[in-house]
Amino acid sequence: MSDTYDAIVIGGGVNGGSTAYNLAKRGKKVLLLEKDRLASKASGAAAGMLAAQAELDEDGPLFQLAKKSRDLFQGLAGEIKTLSGIDIELINKGMYKVALTNEQVKEYKQIISIQQKCGETVQWLTGDEVRSKEPNLSDAILGAMYIEKDGQVSAPQLTLGLLKSAAAIGVDIREYISVDSFLFESERVSGVVTNQGNFFSENIIVTTGAWSKRLLEDTGLQLETYPVKGECFSVVSHQPLLSGTIFSHGCYLVPKKGGRIIVGATVKPNTFNQQVTVDGISSLMDKAKKLMPSIAEAEWEKAWAGIRPQTFDGLPYLGEHPIYQGLFIATGHFRNGILLAPITGEVMADLVEKKQPSVDLTPFRINRTLKTLV
Amino acid sequence: MSDTYDAIVIGGGVNGGSTAYNLAKRGKKVLLLEKDRLASKASGAAAGMLAAQAELDEDGPLFQLAKKSRDLFQGLAGEIKTLSGIDIELINKGMYKVALTNEQVKEYKQIISIQQKCGETVQWLTGDEVRSKEPNLSDAILGAMYIEKDGQVSAPQLTLGLLKSAAAIGVDIREYISVDSFLFESERVSGVVTNQGNFFSENIIVTTGAWSKRLLEDTGLQLETYPVKGECFSVVSHQPLLSGTIFSHGCYLVPKKGGRIIVGATVKPNTFNQQVTVDGISSLMDKAKKLMPSIAEAEWEKAWAGIRPQTFDGLPYLGEHPIYQGLFIATGHFRNGILLAPITGEVMADLVEKKQPSVDLTPFRINRTLKTLV
Amino acid sequence: MSDTYDAIVIGGGVNGGSTAYNLAKRGKKVLLLEKDRLASKASGAAAGMLAAQAELDEDGPLFQLAKKSRDLFQGLAGEIKTLSGIDIELINKGMYKVALTNEQVKEYKQIISIQQKCGETVQWLTGDEVRSKEPNLSDAILGAMYIEKDGQVSAPQLTLGLLKSAAAIGVDIREYISVDSFLFESERVSGVVTNQGNFFSENIIVTTGAWSKRLLEDTGLQLETYPVKGECFSVVSHQPLLSGTIFSHGCYLVPKKGGRIIVGATVKPNTFNQQVTVDGISSLMDKAKKLMPSIAEAEWEKAWAGIRPQTFDGLPYLGEHPIYQGLFIATGHFRNGILLAPITGEVMADLVEKKQPSVDLTPFRINRTLKTLV
Amino acid sequence: MSDTYDAIVIGGGVNGGSTAYNLAKRGKKVLLLEKDRLASKASGAAAGMLAAQAELDEDGPLFQLAKKSRDLFQGLAGEIKTLSGIDIELINKGMYKVALTNEQVKEYKQIISIQQKCGETVQWLTGDEVRSKEPNLSDAILGAMYIEKDGQVSAPQLTLGLLKSAAAIGVDIREYISVDSFLFESERVSGVVTNQGNFFSENIIVTTGAWSKRLLEDTGLQLETYPVKGECFSVVSHQPLLSGTIFSHGCYLVPKKGGRIIVGATVKPNTFNQQVTVDGISSLMDKAKKLMPSIAEAEWEKAWAGIRPQTFDGLPYLGEHPIYQGLFIATGHFRNGILLAPITGEVMADLVEKKQPSVDLTPFRINRTLKTLV
Repeated sequence: MSDTYDAIVIGGGVNGGSTAYNLAKRGKKVLLLEKDRLASKASGAAAGMLAAQAELDEDGPLFQLAKKSRDLFQGLAGEIKTLSGIDIELINKGMYKVALTNEQVKEYKQIISIQQKCGETVQWLTGDEVRSKEPNLSDAILGAMYIEKDGQVSAPQLTLGLLKSAAAIGVDIREYISVDSFLFESERVSGVVTNQGNFFSENIIVTTGAWSKRLLEDTGLQLETYPVKGECFSVVSHQPLLSGTIFSHGCYLVPKKGGRIIVGATVKPNTFNQQVTVDGISSLMDKAKKLMPSIAEAEWEKAWAGIRPQTFDGLPYLGEHPIYQGLFIATGHFRNGILLAPITGEVMADLVEKKQPSVDLTPFRINRTLKTLV
Repeated sequence: MSDTYDAIVIGGGVNGGSTAYNLAKRGKKVLLLEKDRLASKASGAAAGMLAAQAELDEDGPLFQLAKKSRDLFQGLAGEIKTLSGIDIELINKGMYKVALTNEQVKEYKQIISIQQKCGETVQWLTGDEVRSKEPNLSDAILGAMYIEKDGQVSAPQLTLGLLKSAAAIGVDIREYISVDSFLFESERVSGVVTNQGNFFSENIIVTTGAWSKRLLEDTGLQLETYPVKGECFSVVSHQPLLSGTIFSHGCYLVPKKGGRIIVGATVKPNTFNQQVTVDGISSLMDKAKKLMPSIAEAEWEKAWAGIRPQTFDGLPYLGEHPIYQGLFIATGHFRNGILLAPITGEVMADLVEKKQPSVDLTPFRINRTLKTLV
Repeated sequence: MSDTYDAIVIGGGVNGGSTAYNLAKRGKKVLLLEKDRLASKASGAAAGMLAAQAELDEDGPLFQLAKKSRDLFQGLAGEIKTLSGIDIELINKGMYKVALTNEQVKEYKQIISIQQKCGETVQWLTGDEVRSKEPNLSDAILGAMYIEKDGQVSAPQLTLGLLKSAAAIGVDIREYISVDSFLFESERVSGVVTNQGNFFSENIIVTTGAWSKRLLEDTGLQLETYPVKGECFSVVSHQPLLSGTIFSHGCYLVPKKGGRIIVGATVKPNTFNQQVTVDGISSLMDKAKKLMPSIAEAEWEKAWAGIRPQTFDGLPYLGEHPIYQGLFIATGHFRNGILLAPITGEVMADLVEKKQPSVDLTPFRINRTLKTLV
Repeated sequence: MSDTYDAIVIGGGVNGGSTAYNLAKRGKKVLLLEKDRLASKASGAAAGMLAAQAELDEDGPLFQLAKKSRDLFQGLAGEIKTLSGIDIELINKGMYKVALTNEQVKEYKQIISIQQKCGETVQWLTGDEVRSKEPNLSDAILGAMYIEKDGQVSAPQLTLGLLKSAAAIGVDIREYISVDSFLFESERVSGVVTNQGNFFSENIIVTTGAWSKRLLEDTGLQLETYPVKGECFSVVSHQPLLSGTIFSHGCYLVPKKGGRIIVGATVKPNTFNQQVTVDGISSLMDKAKKLMPSIAEAEWEKAWAGIRPQTFDGLPYLGEHPIYQGLFIATGHFRNGILLAPITGEVMADLVEKKQPSVDLTPFRINRTLKTLV
């Protein structure tokens, strides 16, 4: 129990997996600790959209980060398949951000023009053009931004794929171990105290999603994050109802392998309660039927929820602890945890190695606050 | 494989279990054959209402049969608990058949007056009276028939309870055995042909629900039954939302142990497909929220469906085959399979024993047809 | 989130449920907080033996506590059934502590003579006498202590039954809320800090099993407990194989409703890992087959594990915090958590009410240590 | 319900899926009927070994058929991924047929020499050579045939992949429809009678595994097949324990994605009962621990069983009904159902199209019997 590691990653979700995997690829001896089961929280519950352009309307640091991350999926898919046998189910059939009101039509056309000026691939499709590509969609759809590069993956498979690939190249993964606090030597982290004894490393990376705030409080850090529940359900049909991903206000339809569709997601702030409510399912069903009436006949599969960490300014935290050296934090990814996982793993490994990350992390620094923004 | 039995029951559902149990209690050596798992079809899917008066508005043979059966539950609960350890979760907190329109108010008051003339315990409650007893119900409820004696049970536990009690007193239960056809000697049944060989008995009782029609076709019998799918879902809350059972057109709410509520059931005729559809859940949710708005906040548990056998005239078939002696049939119970199981088991055992049943079975005879009704 | 309660119970297991239930019966306004789902840890994993005499060979405070608790089950079963509809499946068909070696024969006969002197009902049965009562048991069994009063319950149903009964009489139960630390005013506890804000009460009862030690460390208390994993599996047969409970070194067989048998349990100290291993199942199967060869043909159902809190001296901790008033602790029940739950709830409610408990709690006090024993 | 199809495939398993898929690729309008859920029987239960050389020791028609089929997997994997998004998890890391006795060493070396004469790639590895490639294997292994080309797939994913790919190119798939009998016009099949009405086609292909015999009995055909239960279980570890597939007498270890291993399979003839027994798991565990001791520490996942159709001479039936034209049969694949699925689909499509199959089907003809062999 007194082993020393090059790095200890806390959290067996998608960002913990990506960080551990990147560190191991660089030859580090890594320990990953998960308090429950791997992929059992938000990472396993996500629908897996890679909505860089659909979700993030305007240019800015998060948009740039998201695009960089999106570009990494193709290569990562191959690596994970080779190392772990897991297919992350990357689908590159585009995303339709559909407009149901004239206001949305106007707004989306403006976004298109902005994105095109930035050099992004995006185009406007009329309602009929949308339906000619996706014949099951409703006549109520007035048109859509069509974003060719915004694909999707299986979030649970990506998460497990990263973790199991990390294990295959030497990461020591342990479940049911909860970290209670950190060990420090002067102003440097030196290990963690857990329910199974102490583990030692001069580099600790916290990737515990919505649970990060609490873990870091004892270090004098008040992350400005809060938990947001998202409920989803899935349906199945033999003949696929959909090819691309449908993104709208308050509801998205993400077609998975074998005719499965994930419908998500509600947004319920300030709760850690993972229960699915009648209301959550009922409201998603109403919206899904408005987008694609024939989903009414699809077979019900199941419902679930995840707790995502949102931040005060909507940007994730990616950086080193403002006081303690060697204590790194990656959280606050909200609805972009899957999309941002590849780049998160890369930049966190850079920070551990004291390399200059390929992205400017200043906007994501840990010690920014609401006050510094004012 | 060539054993001889006093009786062979085909079908491991609630009526098969009740029949086998009654026969074993009378000292018979019984074999029960189930093609799949016990309680895996309609019996395990039912919500378990004992709605003699709520479901069956008018007097008649089915009403009389239902009342007789309802009276047997209390005693049966004790026997099953003793023999198998299984609690059938009999709850006697009454049933509210609620009126949401003025037409229903009028109609239900008439039914009350008819039932009261027959000596039934039933009373009219105003909307406020209903809500004083069940405070979570909606203001949209204008009033209700309150039926004190219409309780409910756990349908899966009743089914397993009957079957396991039957096993405990000697019934030989075998799963995954499907009966293909019957053996006859002159005009008497002498056994069954199955995927595991032949079994012999001069008394065979068919209790295979919606699947009975097909099994009996080769005997020259055309039962006038058809399958009707019913979809249900369940929710849970810590504090119980409901005490009595709520019955309305197209939706009922059945409170189970530990704060669970079953919401049922759709009515989709002419299909054996047990899939639950988005539409089925969505429509039940809408109706349930109209009856009890606070169900919106309850925790989603799961959804399922069962295939129930309905007959041309709404009465079950209970009797002996018109051509072959010793071949008995109990099917066509539709939404009353749970309610009618105790009396079904009794009368089928009477028929096997050539005793006069306590109920006149003429209206339920096998060879009645649409034509004989005209 | 700033409500004040008469008492806050931390932990939604069997002892938390019992404590909350007893407090609510006494008119207290109670909040119960569970970090995960109700009954999701050791309480839901237990086999449910009430092995006062079989497990606890010699007289002493734990034996006395256990006997008192065992006597409470009958009454509790009725209360829980009435309030929550849940049947705790109390079975009073005795327990056989079987001897497989001559040494055990000698040892058990001595225990019998000691227990009889204390006035306990217990008798020796020869191997043949055991098999005449339980015909499926092995010829390898040389004899058994037969303990008439040591029955068993369904551990998950008892746990949920207590919790749901508590809810039915007003306890506010909340899941997915984890307590991080306590609030104090001078030397009295005044509330808890959780992931969902603060809750206030002058009486806090910690019933978090193996997780209690960590929670209390920040209060300066070092409970001398450690986690012990126990793995179990279950099988089913139609005809019941067993009537009474079979207790042996390293393996017990607990017959449940409907022909189900739970086989338990391994003893793996110093881990919080709830995974079941191949080795765990394999060794239990070998032992079970030695006790009852016909279990080999029973149907496999499933396997699971729970993490139980053991203490340095084998006695539970039941008492008030040595420094902070109003902070009560009930943990360290090891394999007797189910058996001791009724009395635990009673004495903890007594402590909160500052009543003299019916049992002398001195041997179970919080501040006893290994050193005080020396 | 009165549609006419080019072909109707009965059975939603791997061979039904492959047949429907091949027919649809050739432009046929196909209906596939499944009485339960897709992939719910033997196809979904298989471990997925492609053991052409390991399972089939000697040259002969089955060996040739198996090798042809094995060669089709690579291409099929790509097609299925494109059409359905499903990864069949084809792993080409070879198979070790391990020898635990000197007799086996001698026997396997002979088989190697025979196979090498036929031009097969196969080599002998000493125990140390085996362990240098698979370090977790036991010292008890004296050596192994190493078969480079005998890989493996996920049987459920292959089955669903074929079926969903078939659906994607137009096959009409319907679950919960059971075929009761056939319609004929003179000596040609013209349709099927089902629980949901009649469906018409001049080409009907029966791919209902162990259930085929019964379905065809009414056509005057007595297939000489019998059901054989196989039980399996699976374990998981983070670090993969195994790379290649281990094949031994009575036990194989098949490493799946993400560190999962399937251990199979028992051989229990003449039963349709899909229950897993204690004995089945226990005996597999003993054998698996002998092959790879460290599996004892792996995490238990689950157990299951499937019913496979074996024939009197060990060869599958592939051909046209001896009396009725247009009625085709593919069954009796026993433990080679997954391996043979690609070629089965091809030759059945050939038969429907009246093309000469690429394989001589004479040894697999329907009307061969035990007597014709004598």
